[in-house]
Amino acid sequence: MQLSQKHILSLRDLSADEISLVLDTAENFKELLARRVKKAPTLRGRSVITLFYENSTRTRTSFELAGKTLSAETINIAVAQSSAAKGESLKDTLQTLDALTADCVVIRHPNSGAPLLASQYVKGHIINAGDGTHEHPSQGLLDLLTVREHKKDFDGLNVTIVGDILHSRVARSGFWGLRKMGANVTLCGPQTLLPREFEAFGARLETNVETALEDADVVMMLRLQNERMDGVFLPGAREYSIQYGLNARRLKLAKPDAIVMHPGPMNRGVEISDEIADGAQSVILNQVTNGLATRMALLYLLLGGEEG
Amino acid sequence: MQLSQKHILSLRDLSADEISLVLDTAENFKELLARRVKKAPTLRGRSVITLFYENSTRTRTSFELAGKTLSAETINIAVAQSSAAKGESLKDTLQTLDALTADCVVIRHPNSGAPLLASQYVKGHIINAGDGTHEHPSQGLLDLLTVREHKKDFDGLNVTIVGDILHSRVARSGFWGLRKMGANVTLCGPQTLLPREFEAFGARLETNVETALEDADVVMMLRLQNERMDGVFLPGAREYSIQYGLNARRLKLAKPDAIVMHPGPMNRGVEISDEIADGAQSVILNQVTNGLATRMALLYLLLGGEEG
Amino acid sequence: MQLSQKHILSLRDLSADEISLVLDTAENFKELLARRVKKAPTLRGRSVITLFYENSTRTRTSFELAGKTLSAETINIAVAQSSAAKGESLKDTLQTLDALTADCVVIRHPNSGAPLLASQYVKGHIINAGDGTHEHPSQGLLDLLTVREHKKDFDGLNVTIVGDILHSRVARSGFWGLRKMGANVTLCGPQTLLPREFEAFGARLETNVETALEDADVVMMLRLQNERMDGVFLPGAREYSIQYGLNARRLKLAKPDAIVMHPGPMNRGVEISDEIADGAQSVILNQVTNGLATRMALLYLLLGGEEG
Repeated sequence: MQLSQKHILSLRDLSADEISLVLDTAENFKELLARRVKKAPTLRGRSVITLFYENSTRTRTSFELAGKTLSAETINIAVAQSSAAKGESLKDTLQTLDALTADCVVIRHPNSGAPLLASQYVKGHIINAGDGTHEHPSQGLLDLLTVREHKKDFDGLNVTIVGDILHSRVARSGFWGLRKMGANVTLCGPQTLLPREFEAFGARLETNVETALEDADVVMMLRLQNERMDGVFLPGAREYSIQYGLNARRLKLAKPDAIVMHPGPMNRGVEISDEIADGAQSVILNQVTNGLATRMALLYLLLGGEEG
Repeated sequence: MQLSQKHILSLRDLSADEISLVLDTAENFKELLARRVKKAPTLRGRSVITLFYENSTRTRTSFELAGKTLSAETINIAVAQSSAAKGESLKDTLQTLDALTADCVVIRHPNSGAPLLASQYVKGHIINAGDGTHEHPSQGLLDLLTVREHKKDFDGLNVTIVGDILHSRVARSGFWGLRKMGANVTLCGPQTLLPREFEAFGARLETNVETALEDADVVMMLRLQNERMDGVFLPGAREYSIQYGLNARRLKLAKPDAIVMHPGPMNRGVEISDEIADGAQSVILNQVTNGLATRMALLYLLLGGEEG
Repeated sequence: MQLSQKHILSLRDLSADEISLVLDTAENFKELLARRVKKAPTLRGRSVITLFYENSTRTRTSFELAGKTLSAETINIAVAQSSAAKGESLKDTLQTLDALTADCVVIRHPNSGAPLLASQYVKGHIINAGDGTHEHPSQGLLDLLTVREHKKDFDGLNVTIVGDILHSRVARSGFWGLRKMGANVTLCGPQTLLPREFEAFGARLETNVETALEDADVVMMLRLQNERMDGVFLPGAREYSIQYGLNARRLKLAKPDAIVMHPGPMNRGVEISDEIADGAQSVILNQVTNGLATRMALLYLLLGGEEG
């Protein structure tokens, strides 16, 4: 089986079968990552360019290491946002990378839809590494892999996502992926940050975090973006923490074997307490390893199909 | 045949035969770049360091990818201009890279002549990736390759270069290369930006862009640097665009099969209109691919001579 | 023989035998570095991440090239100090790199002890690339290699280190290493920058540079940090230069075959004059090459033990 998509722009575009293919492939790569010599020749002579219009050491490093582990050539391009404003258009940048024979461009951009636009200007593959408030599909996939590893079956699983749902591409990719795989998704956050539109797609919306946590198999905490804590959407970090932060007392409301996830980097003491972040139910570091394996899977499925 | 030069500092230093050797070698590498697996072992175990005192994602990426495609180790060093001021001398930096056994240093510097100075402090090879208002030889070579691909013969070819000739290292490298290969070169721009000295070397100078475009086989538009549009040299971007910008009406003055070139990044709507940039006569993206092949050729000819 | 340490945090932790093992290994790697093809497959499939919370092109480049020469995958992470303040904790960053299956993290950090802290959060190896005013062990080792190359035997050798001893991790690593190997160490600098504590470990302290230089076999000049020249510790760069700068007249006080060292980058005309920096007794560029070989040795001994 192969991906039907040429690009990875969103989880909303992928079928449940395609998602399973990515997860299965990633699972195989985890074996490679457990070895002393972590190197496969699969993508030798193929080029992967990371093009980041926003900082993200974590995601960039993960993609870079994924490419290198598969023997691809990796090139990093960081575009400062200030210079993007006066610089050349996204179209010209992408056409330039295409003319440099880039086989894959991994793009992060503050504007929702930028990767879709980018995909029109390249012959190679585009992977969306986060676009505005739209999606972050490789994060969604690594989250699904982590859930599957711990819970085996998505069917009927209760997943609660807590935070600034409105602005979160992590929540959006997670939501679409989980729904496609058959999980029940509760989205929880302050009223102002909880878009009603998701109800039509089967989400349960909940402003009270304690109600939202009841019976949860999986709890996904979102990172609170500092730039949101300006009083328009949220009264402040401390107030948010009191109302929505995950701590030991609250986690007891979920199922006893519930797992706790966070895309990182964490604001410890804000959306998540230290005891939970470092606790037995936390699978946050598994997510990181799964992220590397998932990005290897994506690069392999897009670029390396016929080999193996 | 081999290059007689140890370093690539300018096109003025290269003979027509040497230029042809680079272009022929680059043409061969284009075949490699067209393959699925774009990798040759030629420069295995050789180190290429890019040392950029000015930002240039495009040129740096092109050299980095050229090195990686030939299996060289590539290291990027970006020196912020502010820190260069208080940092160590160019001499100490180059001697340090030499002591790190760098085989080739690709240097971009705001001061004309910095690469020549640099070449005195290393045992390896220096490639000038743009120095002040002096030269940008790899750009000149990729431009020549692009012209040759489309026009076959340089002899008697009419090439018109339009823009801020005075401050343009692209124009200088292009001029020297084109003259050596036998082309007629018209330099066009505002009187204040059109140095008379080039007449002695066979350039035709022209302040009226429409006169300059008549009968042109090749039109090279230069990027207007924002920092020039301060009123000293130029009245402003809009005024410049009206007087010198390339649009469909003006391009009709050139030969019907004229090609349009631009070193990038483009200021669309200033020196070049969208319809021309994206039009059938534009070879701007070919230039980018040729840039990669040309830089591979330079690295190969300097570092890889005996193998291949 | 092998290192007993899992991490390289300080020279104070290493035994004389272990230091000799590193120097012997580095010496072997210098032969590889003298070859045209500088590449060994030793660390294929192993990952080395440089994590720098302070700028240091020189040290980062040296480690990166060391890793690449041994065929490791290298990833660079530069954390701007401003963003480190608001970013995630060192613990979370290290645990993330660990989850990304990093085999070695080379860390530079403004806080003394950060690498020790870091070593608690990874399964892989930590190399301290400079922490606050504590240690810079790879610098100490390359300095020892340089001394050994020129002076053969450490026993009874007179080494004078001149500069801001108080704040210098280079001085600290140098001191511990030299003492372990049997050299006599004189620490010289202004009273305010000369910690008495070293006397207990066998250092001779001296505020007069001319007295300190008498009979020296090795003179190590430290870089004067600009941020110290604020009037609190030092009256200013010019005053410092007059009182402590090394020039030809002063160097004559040392033994005729004394060597002059400096960790770079140099403030020419401040702590060292041009004639000395570029003179026959200077081994400053040898230090750079030895730095590359030493870092290869460290990576090899930590990561590559069983192969070779």
